[in-house]
Amino acid sequence: MAALETLIEALRRLPGVGQKSAQRMAYHLLQHDREGAQVLSRALAGAASDIGHCERCHTFSEAALCPICADEQRDARLLCVVETPADQAALERTGSFRGYYFVLLGRVSPLDGIGARQIGAEQLLARAQDGRVEEVILATSFTAEGEATAHVLGEALRSRQLRSTRLARGVPVGSELEYVDLGTIAHALVDRR
Amino acid sequence: MAALETLIEALRRLPGVGQKSAQRMAYHLLQHDREGAQVLSRALAGAASDIGHCERCHTFSEAALCPICADEQRDARLLCVVETPADQAALERTGSFRGYYFVLLGRVSPLDGIGARQIGAEQLLARAQDGRVEEVILATSFTAEGEATAHVLGEALRSRQLRSTRLARGVPVGSELEYVDLGTIAHALVDRR
Repeated sequence: MAALETLIEALRRLPGVGQKSAQRMAYHLLQHDREGAQVLSRALAGAASDIGHCERCHTFSEAALCPICADEQRDARLLCVVETPADQAALERTGSFRGYYFVLLGRVSPLDGIGARQIGAEQLLARAQDGRVEEVILATSFTAEGEATAHVLGEALRSRQLRSTRLARGVPVGSELEYVDLGTIAHALVDRR
Repeated sequence: MAALETLIEALRRLPGVGQKSAQRMAYHLLQHDREGAQVLSRALAGAASDIGHCERCHTFSEAALCPICADEQRDARLLCVVETPADQAALERTGSFRGYYFVLLGRVSPLDGIGARQIGAEQLLARAQDGRVEEVILATSFTAEGEATAHVLGEALRSRQLRSTRLARGVPVGSELEYVDLGTIAHALVDRR
């Protein structure tokens, strides 16, 4: 049946969803939650069309400026660099950081041909040289690629006389920031070096 | 952010998807697969609007008659009763059954007030009394509720002089039919008693 096959195929594009899970989801929606299928359909279309990127920090945003960049009460001396909007959301939920963010939307990966240019290092340098930023906190993941990213960006910032720090090593090495418990992230923010 | 929150909330309606998985799916689609979000949105809307139920066997179908009921080459003497369209699909994939199906869309559950009437026993009896059906194979799950369903339907069929059989006990007791491996289902079909 074409519509059912199409739905199962489309559900498999979700991360972590294989053939069996996709089938189970499709049958569940059709048999028990057709309203849920409509709700999810509209939410997906709405998100894909309405959510762009903040022109200043590059995180997901429906407006030109995200709510954080638009908030003038935050501390303009601190700029925190993260790899993804999910990482930014995790940091923000700790409630321990009152500065602004810059979202790279990627990380340095020489084997894949992704260098400083591809992750927007130039935009970061321009953002950090606004005359108000005094410290750039490099909050990339503590994986090999995240460390390489922090190293490359730290060197570039130093060559322009900008001070950069790294999250403290309270964060377990080898883990993705998004999944670290909030207490650990908060502690690492305080202990940044 | 409203559109992102709405999307995460909608993804949580999928079976087996909690808050963390929903977040991961939403961020993945927005960051790496916006086309996938559009494709899934259209597939969900299409399935919810186009897929109804076959008027004869009640399985999911885009047409008034599903492809199996519309196939006149199958054996009209055999009618196989299953709980869900997913169970029917599993049986059909074994390639061991050439008769027709009847999908209950539920199972007897006295504690929830679901009896023979609620699962469409009357429609099944009418379907089985078409003058061509000689044997009704009760292929409900081998769970307590599936067994109760088979018992109730078997009694009703017997009172109308209709012969009913049950899948052989090759199927592991306590398991859901949908997830049984195809070889076991094929064996159970041959050994029906």
